[in-house]
Amino acid sequence: MDKEVAVSQSRGLEMHELSTRLFPICRSITGNGVRETLRILSEIIPLGVKEIPTGTKVFDWDVPREWNITDAYIKDADGRRVIDFARSNLHVLNYSVPIHQQVSLEELRKHLYYLEDHPDWIPYRTSYYKEDWGFCVTHNQYKQLNDPAYEVCIASTLEPGSLTYGEYFIPGEVEDEVLISAHVCHPSLANDNLAGLAVVSSLAETLSKRKNYYSYRFLFIPGTIGAIAWLAQNEERVHRIQFGLVASLLGDPGPFTYKRSRRGNTEIDRIAEYVLAKHGERNKVIDFFPYGYDERQFCSPGFNLAVGCLSRTPFGQYPQYHTSADDLDFITPESMEESYDVYLEILSILDQNRFYINTNPKCEPQLGKRGLYSLKGGNNDAKAFQMALLWTLNLASGEYSLLDIAQRSNTDFSVIREAASRLEESGLLKPAGR
Amino acid sequence: MDKEVAVSQSRGLEMHELSTRLFPICRSITGNGVRETLRILSEIIPLGVKEIPTGTKVFDWDVPREWNITDAYIKDADGRRVIDFARSNLHVLNYSVPIHQQVSLEELRKHLYYLEDHPDWIPYRTSYYKEDWGFCVTHNQYKQLNDPAYEVCIASTLEPGSLTYGEYFIPGEVEDEVLISAHVCHPSLANDNLAGLAVVSSLAETLSKRKNYYSYRFLFIPGTIGAIAWLAQNEERVHRIQFGLVASLLGDPGPFTYKRSRRGNTEIDRIAEYVLAKHGERNKVIDFFPYGYDERQFCSPGFNLAVGCLSRTPFGQYPQYHTSADDLDFITPESMEESYDVYLEILSILDQNRFYINTNPKCEPQLGKRGLYSLKGGNNDAKAFQMALLWTLNLASGEYSLLDIAQRSNTDFSVIREAASRLEESGLLKPAGR
Amino acid sequence: MDKEVAVSQSRGLEMHELSTRLFPICRSITGNGVRETLRILSEIIPLGVKEIPTGTKVFDWDVPREWNITDAYIKDADGRRVIDFARSNLHVLNYSVPIHQQVSLEELRKHLYYLEDHPDWIPYRTSYYKEDWGFCVTHNQYKQLNDPAYEVCIASTLEPGSLTYGEYFIPGEVEDEVLISAHVCHPSLANDNLAGLAVVSSLAETLSKRKNYYSYRFLFIPGTIGAIAWLAQNEERVHRIQFGLVASLLGDPGPFTYKRSRRGNTEIDRIAEYVLAKHGERNKVIDFFPYGYDERQFCSPGFNLAVGCLSRTPFGQYPQYHTSADDLDFITPESMEESYDVYLEILSILDQNRFYINTNPKCEPQLGKRGLYSLKGGNNDAKAFQMALLWTLNLASGEYSLLDIAQRSNTDFSVIREAASRLEESGLLKPAGR
Repeated sequence: MDKEVAVSQSRGLEMHELSTRLFPICRSITGNGVRETLRILSEIIPLGVKEIPTGTKVFDWDVPREWNITDAYIKDADGRRVIDFARSNLHVLNYSVPIHQQVSLEELRKHLYYLEDHPDWIPYRTSYYKEDWGFCVTHNQYKQLNDPAYEVCIASTLEPGSLTYGEYFIPGEVEDEVLISAHVCHPSLANDNLAGLAVVSSLAETLSKRKNYYSYRFLFIPGTIGAIAWLAQNEERVHRIQFGLVASLLGDPGPFTYKRSRRGNTEIDRIAEYVLAKHGERNKVIDFFPYGYDERQFCSPGFNLAVGCLSRTPFGQYPQYHTSADDLDFITPESMEESYDVYLEILSILDQNRFYINTNPKCEPQLGKRGLYSLKGGNNDAKAFQMALLWTLNLASGEYSLLDIAQRSNTDFSVIREAASRLEESGLLKPAGR
Repeated sequence: MDKEVAVSQSRGLEMHELSTRLFPICRSITGNGVRETLRILSEIIPLGVKEIPTGTKVFDWDVPREWNITDAYIKDADGRRVIDFARSNLHVLNYSVPIHQQVSLEELRKHLYYLEDHPDWIPYRTSYYKEDWGFCVTHNQYKQLNDPAYEVCIASTLEPGSLTYGEYFIPGEVEDEVLISAHVCHPSLANDNLAGLAVVSSLAETLSKRKNYYSYRFLFIPGTIGAIAWLAQNEERVHRIQFGLVASLLGDPGPFTYKRSRRGNTEIDRIAEYVLAKHGERNKVIDFFPYGYDERQFCSPGFNLAVGCLSRTPFGQYPQYHTSADDLDFITPESMEESYDVYLEILSILDQNRFYINTNPKCEPQLGKRGLYSLKGGNNDAKAFQMALLWTLNLASGEYSLLDIAQRSNTDFSVIREAASRLEESGLLKPAGR
Repeated sequence: MDKEVAVSQSRGLEMHELSTRLFPICRSITGNGVRETLRILSEIIPLGVKEIPTGTKVFDWDVPREWNITDAYIKDADGRRVIDFARSNLHVLNYSVPIHQQVSLEELRKHLYYLEDHPDWIPYRTSYYKEDWGFCVTHNQYKQLNDPAYEVCIASTLEPGSLTYGEYFIPGEVEDEVLISAHVCHPSLANDNLAGLAVVSSLAETLSKRKNYYSYRFLFIPGTIGAIAWLAQNEERVHRIQFGLVASLLGDPGPFTYKRSRRGNTEIDRIAEYVLAKHGERNKVIDFFPYGYDERQFCSPGFNLAVGCLSRTPFGQYPQYHTSADDLDFITPESMEESYDVYLEILSILDQNRFYINTNPKCEPQLGKRGLYSLKGGNNDAKAFQMALLWTLNLASGEYSLLDIAQRSNTDFSVIREAASRLEESGLLKPAGR
């Protein structure tokens, strides 16, 4: 086993180990679970952690009160904890108000959520903006709740505090930014979105170690309210975001799905489609729709950013979605590593895609006298590279990017990129303004 | 049977009864048949009847002399009327000059029209712009004409008079007009175009009773020369016509065919296509071609109006076309009622299609605090309506009409229309300029 | 057999006879072979012959030294010519430097080219820009070369001289030019490109005898360096070239392939596609790629002319390509004549394609009073012609060319052309500016 493969395999394992560390933490859209998660991610990348106080106006919304929880249970008549938050933080309706009282079975049942189709799975439910309490239980647990009354306790607090998020910025050659955003608000759900956090932080670490053309901004934010709050507080800088990807559901073994930006045919859309097509026939590209993850906010009509969403199996399309079965066995090191690779390839092509001008546009230049032509040369690769040179020269009139040239010539982007570099070295190409 | 169905069924029957009243009248492009027809239609809608004198210059044409007829026959040697206008007004070549004389069989045959393939049907033939006389007979009648000579009589007049047409205008909220035009020049042919006259007058009656955004103009005109004359005399008002439909062949049981306007992708074209697709797989949409009904004139390059033609089976594509078999049995109350429904749905969507601006375009607004979000709500309709709200908000940037939003979101227009109304009530949308 | 067919058949035979006369001449990118070829073509059309001196700078290139050859052979130990230039000029690596010496078999083999798959065929190879010598032999000949050493002689010269090409210009009604270019540099290869030379010179002769709208420029030039040299020396006139075709490989019996210009949807591209579709289902149209014949230069980004390449079977796609099997039996009079016909049809449509304005754009004009309408007229051709009149009137608003009208109406171009002429005679159409 050579060194490169070993390194590579270790990345998948590292991402899975990170997910394993993050799994037990009870996250929500605010609170200490998010802070602890960001602290762990800070071990990989030097994350800036921001706090936005409760009540801050962010466009049409207000930052909500902060939610924290230490314990929760349902006790039967014998005082046994038949449902215990300590066993799974999914048991509590996320954002439940505090409660501690005896309730009749009839009353309790109005506050229970379960899945008849999957009797051993706990569903994940939230009530962020309507005050309520509740428990999520397996259907088997539900069926065993037959006592006339139970003691229910949710030791939560819902008080003025703040919304917490993490941000990491890597300056590039230009101020134009690429935004990568991942939601950090789900509790013990591995694919949604610990795998995403692991892939994005690993990607950020890689990009921080190389010279990039674009600047890269990574956001680890609670869903919806986090994206809205970030956009509201950074409105004057939003125009720098040229492209972006929302990263979620990156650990399951399904094929990839890229959801286009609202604009639909931007450079990031085309590159994502190009890379996914190369990586497998089962990968899919779908049109934008105003539901899903934070692309909803980035693609709202007042921003209309070139931001797509790249997942593996889309939300709601696998049975484990938003249940306790979305656990650490559901995500694999191999899938996370493949997700990392696909993201990195998309960003690499984006970073290297350029427009060039042929400095000798009238007729072909004489490649031979510049050592770019193997006169009677033979093997197919040499022929293919010569065609790449000719295509690049022919289309380097400022209208076509290297990606355009790669697609029109049915040549791999990397070959056209190499051809352009050789031609630029020979003085036959010069960079055009973008 | 509930009241609505009863009313609805009566509309089909009323339209068929109206066709039955109009059937015996001998119409042509001018003359008393048109006047009598318009008088009967005036019982339903307050039709303005206009007369344009013979000889009036209308663009490249002149209004022809007026044609009227009281009797016509072919008598055999025994004085029996073997062909009699009283039995069918199709027997006379429409616009025949008067004649009364003995003619040899050989001479007579030069003036006879018949259909070998349908030996019991009388064809419909005209000679508006070339002076001629003739009889249309069944092939069986033709074969029995064996006497050496016959007495032929056509008691017609072709004299200075006028071209008659009917017009009905319903003012709307805006001066922009929708034109609905039907030809009124064919004699005893039920589908072509008594069914059209019945559907259009019923439609006009319905629109007159409701508040409309557009103004609606209904024309009951002789084919070709009538449309040319109307356009010539109303040239300074033509720019108000935003959209239009030519109505013909609306009583047979075949699927619908919409023929696009010359421009091909106007709003009326897209709405007609949308409604026809909803109403049945067999319905068809075809491109414009410069033949057919009065869309030829409305879509001439000097006007180039957004006027299509909506029929059931197109002209020439059913065997009964332009024969005595296009009779009252060929058209059904159900077909006419369905035609009415499809026209009304097209016009209703057209009248309600608008552009809106999202007043809160940066990020999604908080639907919950406005009662637009059922927090843990469940049934599919609530979900579908929430998606309609999100789609409408996302695309309400002034570039997309409600129809565009309905089509891009694959949602019924009525649901998007309702979503837009709810959002407008909440202050989240405001009308854009069209 | 009527006279027209006889004349037509004689054209195919004449073209084949011309190819036969040109076949034995040893051509290259410079030298007396080109001069002799142009002299023979001058018997058909009054060709201007131009000479560009060695060393002349032409864009990125320099006109090379002139190459001539009188003899070449490989002699075995017994003094027998085992390979003899006199038997086929393909035997010499084209542009070989002079040599006359004994060489070992081992050394000789480094300078031999052959085709294992076709043991009886001689390959065609060149070394224009790298000084080298070599022989092209059949594989059977190669296997019999077993002597330890051979006498090799190439009696060539590579000296200052000039690059020779032929040009023929036919002035038209307008200065805008159509360029037809054929390469004149290949030695004894019949399809590549003696058939092309024969078709193009025959076409030039035909066009010279009729009145043309466009001016036509015919180039008989060595490949690559010839096109580059011509463009360099005529740069100030290049803007007059509106359209062009590169003519090659026109004698084999395969279907046609049209390679689009770099711009891809110009008038010549559309007309070539239209004509090829009419002439056979197996004909193909392919996108531009920057390899092949002199369209590479005409379509370089600095010129980007509307020049396509029309061949029969494309280069490299038939086994005889660039071998001695591309001989006079491979090309047929019938194929050359069909090639001539297709070229002539494309150029005729191009020459006759116009934009017209309807002088009576509001409503249809009355065709009857101008004798353009057969009132009760009958046969299908009359109906089809009437539709052509109506289509032409309807679309003659200056946006649509006659080709556009033909394609939109699914009518043959010649019928629309005739309709436009009749309408123009009647005053109903007038020419628009192009």
